[in-house]
Amino acid sequence: MKEFFPQVREILYEGPKTDNPFAFRFYNPDEVIGGKKMREHLRFAMSYWHTFCGEGVDMFGAGTLDKSFGGKNPMEIARNRAHAAFELLDKLGLDYYCFHDRDIAPEAQTLRETNARLDEMTALLTQLNREHGKKVLWGTANCFYNPRYAAGAGTSPSAEVFAFAAAQIKKAIEITTALGGSGYVFWGGREGYDTLLNTDMALEQENMARLLRMEAEYARSIGFKGDFYIEPKPKEPTKHQYDFDAATVIGFLKKFGLDDIFKLNIEANHATLAQHTFQHELCVARINGAFGSIDANQGDPLLGWDTDQFPTNAYDAALCMLEVLRAGGFVNGGLNFDAKLRRASCDMDDLFHAYIAGMDTFALGLRIALRIVADGRLDAFVAQRYSSWKTGIGEQIISGRAGIAELERFALEKGDVMPSSGRQEYLENLINGILFTE
Amino acid sequence: MKEFFPQVREILYEGPKTDNPFAFRFYNPDEVIGGKKMREHLRFAMSYWHTFCGEGVDMFGAGTLDKSFGGKNPMEIARNRAHAAFELLDKLGLDYYCFHDRDIAPEAQTLRETNARLDEMTALLTQLNREHGKKVLWGTANCFYNPRYAAGAGTSPSAEVFAFAAAQIKKAIEITTALGGSGYVFWGGREGYDTLLNTDMALEQENMARLLRMEAEYARSIGFKGDFYIEPKPKEPTKHQYDFDAATVIGFLKKFGLDDIFKLNIEANHATLAQHTFQHELCVARINGAFGSIDANQGDPLLGWDTDQFPTNAYDAALCMLEVLRAGGFVNGGLNFDAKLRRASCDMDDLFHAYIAGMDTFALGLRIALRIVADGRLDAFVAQRYSSWKTGIGEQIISGRAGIAELERFALEKGDVMPSSGRQEYLENLINGILFTE
Amino acid sequence: MKEFFPQVREILYEGPKTDNPFAFRFYNPDEVIGGKKMREHLRFAMSYWHTFCGEGVDMFGAGTLDKSFGGKNPMEIARNRAHAAFELLDKLGLDYYCFHDRDIAPEAQTLRETNARLDEMTALLTQLNREHGKKVLWGTANCFYNPRYAAGAGTSPSAEVFAFAAAQIKKAIEITTALGGSGYVFWGGREGYDTLLNTDMALEQENMARLLRMEAEYARSIGFKGDFYIEPKPKEPTKHQYDFDAATVIGFLKKFGLDDIFKLNIEANHATLAQHTFQHELCVARINGAFGSIDANQGDPLLGWDTDQFPTNAYDAALCMLEVLRAGGFVNGGLNFDAKLRRASCDMDDLFHAYIAGMDTFALGLRIALRIVADGRLDAFVAQRYSSWKTGIGEQIISGRAGIAELERFALEKGDVMPSSGRQEYLENLINGILFTE
Amino acid sequence: MKEFFPQVREILYEGPKTDNPFAFRFYNPDEVIGGKKMREHLRFAMSYWHTFCGEGVDMFGAGTLDKSFGGKNPMEIARNRAHAAFELLDKLGLDYYCFHDRDIAPEAQTLRETNARLDEMTALLTQLNREHGKKVLWGTANCFYNPRYAAGAGTSPSAEVFAFAAAQIKKAIEITTALGGSGYVFWGGREGYDTLLNTDMALEQENMARLLRMEAEYARSIGFKGDFYIEPKPKEPTKHQYDFDAATVIGFLKKFGLDDIFKLNIEANHATLAQHTFQHELCVARINGAFGSIDANQGDPLLGWDTDQFPTNAYDAALCMLEVLRAGGFVNGGLNFDAKLRRASCDMDDLFHAYIAGMDTFALGLRIALRIVADGRLDAFVAQRYSSWKTGIGEQIISGRAGIAELERFALEKGDVMPSSGRQEYLENLINGILFTE
Repeated sequence: MKEFFPQVREILYEGPKTDNPFAFRFYNPDEVIGGKKMREHLRFAMSYWHTFCGEGVDMFGAGTLDKSFGGKNPMEIARNRAHAAFELLDKLGLDYYCFHDRDIAPEAQTLRETNARLDEMTALLTQLNREHGKKVLWGTANCFYNPRYAAGAGTSPSAEVFAFAAAQIKKAIEITTALGGSGYVFWGGREGYDTLLNTDMALEQENMARLLRMEAEYARSIGFKGDFYIEPKPKEPTKHQYDFDAATVIGFLKKFGLDDIFKLNIEANHATLAQHTFQHELCVARINGAFGSIDANQGDPLLGWDTDQFPTNAYDAALCMLEVLRAGGFVNGGLNFDAKLRRASCDMDDLFHAYIAGMDTFALGLRIALRIVADGRLDAFVAQRYSSWKTGIGEQIISGRAGIAELERFALEKGDVMPSSGRQEYLENLINGILFTE
Repeated sequence: MKEFFPQVREILYEGPKTDNPFAFRFYNPDEVIGGKKMREHLRFAMSYWHTFCGEGVDMFGAGTLDKSFGGKNPMEIARNRAHAAFELLDKLGLDYYCFHDRDIAPEAQTLRETNARLDEMTALLTQLNREHGKKVLWGTANCFYNPRYAAGAGTSPSAEVFAFAAAQIKKAIEITTALGGSGYVFWGGREGYDTLLNTDMALEQENMARLLRMEAEYARSIGFKGDFYIEPKPKEPTKHQYDFDAATVIGFLKKFGLDDIFKLNIEANHATLAQHTFQHELCVARINGAFGSIDANQGDPLLGWDTDQFPTNAYDAALCMLEVLRAGGFVNGGLNFDAKLRRASCDMDDLFHAYIAGMDTFALGLRIALRIVADGRLDAFVAQRYSSWKTGIGEQIISGRAGIAELERFALEKGDVMPSSGRQEYLENLINGILFTE
Repeated sequence: MKEFFPQVREILYEGPKTDNPFAFRFYNPDEVIGGKKMREHLRFAMSYWHTFCGEGVDMFGAGTLDKSFGGKNPMEIARNRAHAAFELLDKLGLDYYCFHDRDIAPEAQTLRETNARLDEMTALLTQLNREHGKKVLWGTANCFYNPRYAAGAGTSPSAEVFAFAAAQIKKAIEITTALGGSGYVFWGGREGYDTLLNTDMALEQENMARLLRMEAEYARSIGFKGDFYIEPKPKEPTKHQYDFDAATVIGFLKKFGLDDIFKLNIEANHATLAQHTFQHELCVARINGAFGSIDANQGDPLLGWDTDQFPTNAYDAALCMLEVLRAGGFVNGGLNFDAKLRRASCDMDDLFHAYIAGMDTFALGLRIALRIVADGRLDAFVAQRYSSWKTGIGEQIISGRAGIAELERFALEKGDVMPSSGRQEYLENLINGILFTE
Repeated sequence: MKEFFPQVREILYEGPKTDNPFAFRFYNPDEVIGGKKMREHLRFAMSYWHTFCGEGVDMFGAGTLDKSFGGKNPMEIARNRAHAAFELLDKLGLDYYCFHDRDIAPEAQTLRETNARLDEMTALLTQLNREHGKKVLWGTANCFYNPRYAAGAGTSPSAEVFAFAAAQIKKAIEITTALGGSGYVFWGGREGYDTLLNTDMALEQENMARLLRMEAEYARSIGFKGDFYIEPKPKEPTKHQYDFDAATVIGFLKKFGLDDIFKLNIEANHATLAQHTFQHELCVARINGAFGSIDANQGDPLLGWDTDQFPTNAYDAALCMLEVLRAGGFVNGGLNFDAKLRRASCDMDDLFHAYIAGMDTFALGLRIALRIVADGRLDAFVAQRYSSWKTGIGEQIISGRAGIAELERFALEKGDVMPSSGRQEYLENLINGILFTE
């Protein structure tokens, strides 16, 4: 097979001091830290769509980086992309990838023909997985690009559109299962509304729940063993997306009795679009038993849309990995780089620069998170801050032995109380100390 | 009793053409429209805090409007404020008011003494209610001003602070019950966090649930018959407030089995701070059976804090009242003007200008909403848009007769489908036609 | 010539009470109000790009409304679009249109060939202008779509790209002149940066100034008599656009001595993206003598990108038209609907619904603005509020007769002073009274 | 003199590995790097208002940290604060402080009496400066707290208020001069508007220019040799502040011929409130010759108000210091910590934790910035990216030898061009490499 990135060799770990831009400084895949190999902690995945389908188009401009890889028709392009993808996975040392159905095989005139293309590409990917030792982190269905889904898929006002979505997702689940995917993601592309003037929100949400239940049951019936994830996003493309944030999705799942079936795939940029920190969304998922997988990218806090940048902020990566460690690490999930090149990064080399940047940032984040845990001061501070709940009136409240009358009596007798200092500035300095003093 | 606003006479309805600034153009309290008197549709309430305690302080400046009403010590001020409040209620024709415990009686050195002050003021308000024919829409406890609550009340890291909050709320519920309040609001003043570095979110939320259950059970035990409300707000004063928005609160209530006990008090400015429209939050509350009461104000969409302006936008008021009508109207709730004068509005007259503006805006909103309903085109459009769910494949999906296999078969045979136009521009024009062509 | 919109007849004024969706309620083009025909006050223009080139593509989906009008190749499509455009202009009674070079003729392989296409289309449009009695409000060059401009045009790091932009704009000015356009717009598509790490801001801005001067001088040299406009926008597609807002652009023009040559084209949605009200930007332009033309649309204040919605908010339209009246009305500028259908509005009918909505909203806005002026209370309030500058110490300050020593003496003797109430609530109510009580 | 912080000893540099929370890890004041002592590079200043006047009040709560230092009346408190301030300056090794007139002496009943208090405190501070070897980085006047300034000071609708502001600023300039301050700041506290309905923006801005000119001339007349700074801020407390951002202020100064007289004091949190990065604002100031001084703090990008947090983000500090180095370093300006404790940080110790955090962050930032410069790859990349402006067509454009005709000819002959890759991901990774691999 032709080499698509001949100018780039395999990216290897060379340690922090290297000035080779095509090397890792922090990601040493087989180094064991915190009891596991780094590759097992991080479970890095490539996003098929951004990396092999996205060409740098934006709302004001055409593509700047051709991704046809020499293909002359849609299926030839699809096959070449697959081969190029595995070359990139190999050269970067990535073990996993994630895809939408339409990423791997272009839509044809009819659903039947489209499905046949998917079968052909699934066969090719199955073979490439085996040959290259790669795995599918998760698959998903693109139910937002086609004009048919202009008003939603599972939440479309049209029952016929809903039926198409159900059929499309059924097929996507089948191929994800066939490819041995350890997860399946539902991202609510256009599941939301543009204006309440024309929207029956109650019916749309009930229908979404119907679809989710139906697909999950079908997946189990054909032997899919992986996780199901919902991926929160607050807005864009629709004015309001129903899967606004982690708390909203968890409430929705509870309402419809789906909370035992679905976990969350948390994306950093979606978190900030919802006015939450990345860490917040991960924490909400974790304490509700819904932590699943992560879309590792970053947004620009001064811009109001999903910029999907490659993650390079070490603070965010460290606090993310701290939450992952607290959640016990990934099981079926991983870190998928749902990130795209800036449009002006118009060389194939930039793909490698970008993945190196993202992988090294999260490798650094993992190293820092483990140092925070080992250091112990942060956890000890929090434990001390909440220590009043372990004894005395706190323990009585939690055990149910102190009711409202006892609490009033306590307060009347106590005089007054003050909480201890929250010490935010001290803690931020503590974190800096750990970040910058290996 | 001394008259506190001698320059202002009773505000009366004079119709749209009046140019008397001290008259209503749209609010005609006893006019029957849509089957009820306007005053019964709208159930307007005065906010005690902004109207009689707030003096125009902001983070960069001292008060601009003295609200001591000639009082020389805290309790004399409190009494004078009460008398002035009822004069304003009378002159504006407001039937209801809302208050925090600390609005009606200032905090003293000890909880016991503070409670005694509350008892004294409760007696006075009981008498004034009777004499003036006014009612309490809802009461609440201020668990955020005192330094004790710097890190939260029900979610404080300190169990002792929690105990104080529980005792304070117990008393607030007692006086609300004594005053015949038809509602009790929990607003999560500082129930949230400033940094996750020092926060145990899981424990804090469990404790909040404990507090809510305890207080609600106590209230029922002493005969409180009204509604309990949670009031969503996403941020400010804390970086993250747990009661972020309607969907988050509903999910929280479901998680802790509290969803049958609590409804929502939706505030317009809190909605927009959470990046939702006012109408969105009302709709989410309604379709989840959680619609309760409303804090009627408006924010500035270009500013990032709670400006609590008097509501003067007729579009927002109309769409709000449309949701209220769809919810079947208020039962125990109402429209509380949680709104304050701009700091540069430094005359007592401005209080009247502001309430007239707010009341007339919602009266206009009610009139428009009833016209939208009577017109029928909006509802008919929506019904048509979702009509595919009433027959054929849509009806089969909803009734459970069409499963995933049937849907796939349908899609494979169908060829392709498109949703009908969402017609947003047409609908916005339709609404304008109704707004501007009485 | 084939009729492209056979289902729609000419849109006529039928007055506020009509329920014909294909009629104007407020726009009566030849009605004289405020001393001029409405069509002369408003100078409505169609945006060629959104109306005849945009097909409903967004970042997550393909087009939903085919705009090829039966054309089978790029130039045939271009010709058909032109004919369809004039049919729409006729049916809506629009007198003007605005275009980018690439809207009217598609880019070819070489600049020379592209220019030849422009010449062909310019000839056709010249003929259509004459036949239909239509005019060009302004022309512009699309220097952002082609990958060549990925890092800017006039601010490109590449001098060769700058040369291409200069050549392209030269041609766009020539055809705008040939078509009798009364304005030429510079919109800084990608004139900005994505990251400061790779940017020489000083050089880029100097180059931009060079380009502007060169093009303006060239335009005058070939007889262009219209206005030059800069169109502020703060961000999108680049992270930071140099033409951030009106104040920034005015400062830039002053720095480079270009302020006598360029005026501003203010867009509502760009204003709110920069965290300003539409009225603010218009006012800044006006008081700096830079008011020129308007892109009439609206954004969603809860979304962070340029939604370019058709304007339907009567408050904004009224305050906009009030500023236009204060500026003395349009000279060479006008109201260009830089607005696109929502993607789910997927019928050709929606184009008409949308323009009717926008035109009626601004017609209503004009009527309201004239009522505000005629009413006089708003202007009188402002005059009174600043009256202290007409006499006494105020007059002395302005005339320069009171210096710092006199002011200190005045203050030391005065005791203290307070400003009079700003009366915001009263004024908002006043405006509502005028809006809703014709 | 009593010791006010007996629990804290002098904070010393102990190097990166220390785990003493009361030590510097990165700030080693007399260490020479980049040709200067760190203290000379950084010129750290204490903000008198936050550090010695702010007690943790917010819009929803009372103070949490008493700052009376045992004083029993306003002037005794003022004196104690001064002594405590110098103890803190000593213990932290801070060389400078900044103050508002009202920080150092509380306002009295009359301007005359207030000025007398200022004289008394100026004498005390003069003595303390001498005894402790401390200096004033800049002084300013608080023209926003008093209700008199509710609608602005220099932009008040009331000429009498303007006169008061002029007198107050005159005095503030006198005491700043007396104290040897190297700068004087104009921060436009309420110089802006809340609603355009009641505002004459043109007159207000002309008056502001009058005030600035008058005060600057007066200052020079009494021998003030320092810099004058304007401090941009976009909003809060008013809806719109005239000093929106660096570009707006520079344009304003140019318009009124004040650009040779005033420089800018850039605040990080104000930058982000205006939707700019801190680095952007510094760069705009620099390339316009207006770089002066810095208010070092940080905001929360997810909150919409001025949180004034102590700066702890090393990326921001490094890019800030890189701009400072490019500007040639501070002359009269410095890094003033315009930052306050989080309200829940309610111990005096937290003041020290916070300053240590802020000082160490900027010391680290300086070290990183110097490493970036020494490394050279960033600058070399930028030089290469713009190299086409040094020769050929680029050089001809800049020298004026290539006009529009030449550029067209060039483009027609050239075929097509593309800019080279912007390499954002590579550069972000490069920066990370320098940050994390000393």
